Amino acid sequence: MRFASPQDAAAAILAGNVRAAARLMRMLDDRIDGATDVLRQLYPHTGRAKVIGITGNPGSGKSTLTARLIGHYRKLGMRVGVLAVDPSSPFSGGAILGDRIRMMEFANDSNVFIRSLATRGALGGLSRSTNDIIHVLDAMGHDVVLIETVGVGQDEIDIVRTADTTVVVLVPGLGDDIQAIKAGILEIADIFVVNKADLDGADRTIGDLRGLQTLMGVMPDWLPPILRTVAARSEGVEALAEAIDKHAEFLKTSPTSQVRAQNRAAFAIGGLVRESVGHNVDAWLRQTAAGRQLVADVTARRVDPYLAAQTALTQAQTTRLLP
Amino acid sequence: MRFASPQDAAAAILAGNVRAAARLMRMLDDRIDGATDVLRQLYPHTGRAKVIGITGNPGSGKSTLTARLIGHYRKLGMRVGVLAVDPSSPFSGGAILGDRIRMMEFANDSNVFIRSLATRGALGGLSRSTNDIIHVLDAMGHDVVLIETVGVGQDEIDIVRTADTTVVVLVPGLGDDIQAIKAGILEIADIFVVNKADLDGADRTIGDLRGLQTLMGVMPDWLPPILRTVAARSEGVEALAEAIDKHAEFLKTSPTSQVRAQNRAAFAIGGLVRESVGHNVDAWLRQTAAGRQLVADVTARRVDPYLAAQTALTQAQTTRLLP
Repeated sequence: MRFASPQDAAAAILAGNVRAAARLMRMLDDRIDGATDVLRQLYPHTGRAKVIGITGNPGSGKSTLTARLIGHYRKLGMRVGVLAVDPSSPFSGGAILGDRIRMMEFANDSNVFIRSLATRGALGGLSRSTNDIIHVLDAMGHDVVLIETVGVGQDEIDIVRTADTTVVVLVPGLGDDIQAIKAGILEIADIFVVNKADLDGADRTIGDLRGLQTLMGVMPDWLPPILRTVAARSEGVEALAEAIDKHAEFLKTSPTSQVRAQNRAAFAIGGLVRESVGHNVDAWLRQTAAGRQLVADVTARRVDPYLAAQTALTQAQTTRLLP
Repeated sequence: MRFASPQDAAAAILAGNVRAAARLMRMLDDRIDGATDVLRQLYPHTGRAKVIGITGNPGSGKSTLTARLIGHYRKLGMRVGVLAVDPSSPFSGGAILGDRIRMMEFANDSNVFIRSLATRGALGGLSRSTNDIIHVLDAMGHDVVLIETVGVGQDEIDIVRTADTTVVVLVPGLGDDIQAIKAGILEIADIFVVNKADLDGADRTIGDLRGLQTLMGVMPDWLPPILRTVAARSEGVEALAEAIDKHAEFLKTSPTSQVRAQNRAAFAIGGLVRESVGHNVDAWLRQTAAGRQLVADVTARRVDPYLAAQTALTQAQTTRLLP
């Protein structure tokens, strides 16, 4: 399952070869030596796709909305890459039932590339995986890359926040916890969507959001619009795409754009470092006699975890990046 | 806001002094030198509390259920520490509206210590903070420590999975995404609770769960029971407490208990290392000329993130643990 050379692999992927891209992603999943070499060849050719993050709670209908957006961009003749991040599925690299079903209509469309990423068990590696996949989708020549994540959990929020434009999907009547959720997502949303807007309580949800925006202070340069959609009936999708375009126009003239690009770069670097060090330390703790003894000592309260962490940092090979 | 000495502080906290414990937690929040020294003094005295994780989606009523459990343990004369982890609130160290309101009845009970932890912006630092707080609550002499987290997001799941007993709270009729959620939580649950069991669809949710348990294969030694509660009316809380006791009994005779303790120790060590290295690298990227140049180079695609990560690992002071 190896490529003849990183250059050959990169050339195939840059030409939009789906099988080569899928192969690289599998190599990345399995940590096969050489995968990073291909990524390094691709990197200078990234940065052309418009990256759109879509986040919302389970049940908000964000997968259906994502499918409708894919359809919209396909009608315009654009090539669409999709990364569906699922924090709960234990099936690594595998399919996600609901999402897959909703996106099945694009299964035979060679201009739509959908990748599901199960994140359970990926502690510390999530940001690396998502960044790598976004780079590949971008290098393949996709005009748009949609990242769909569940909007609870710091990792997922950090991923979606690296997008050029972040869409936060809400539904009417989320119940008690909505206040806390809203407070958290206010900072990351460029566009709010109240999906299932035909349900009771949509007006109230929109009113609550407007109230919170006022309360938290108006943003100086971009006030996130609040849109209504009924994704299941394709209502409001064009207006959402328009709002996304408008935000892209805004970014062009705003220093925010450069700041976002830098944040994305720093997030990518930091993610690689965290994953690499975390992986090396975990392996050292589990697979070496010294590491196992240290865990046993901490478990028995003979050594405290702070001293143990310093020992692990010093003894595990933490300063060499994973392949 | 400093203590006379780590020994004095530890002695006060071990004696159950609430003000000393609160002060230490603030010091940990603010990364004040010396906080870790106090933790190190406390560590040999930890491991006595029964740690119970309670997780569920927003709106599952897990906060109400947690409040009812506190009430139950208080009736038995036990001292209860609570750590409420909120992944969405941007208010660090601060109060969480809903939770606080539900737990207000214990505000004047000196045998209940409630700590809210907002996790937004805590990338990589979440596991450290939670471990530290659990150690403090444990060392203070609490008989039970309840950890409440939202059950979406890898970080939150990893936290709750370090508990001795993990309770997963579901509600009837969660909608489309329930399949994915269920698949993910099946592995971490020691006990399932279907809360709001007076709602339509409770039987179906229980049936679905039973079906999934069968599908995934019966656990060799402990099949997680599925309980019904209506936390708002205090129904089923005693049965839940009984199930938790039964699981604690099971752990005593099972090798699982030792494995969990070791996993918890390894998770604590790994969390400290990740947080420390991540923090140092982020600071280096943002605050040094070399770091800022590197971010600019990656942003402009002059340097790829993989090479940049190796540079950051080598140049940032990653092998010294944070204070």
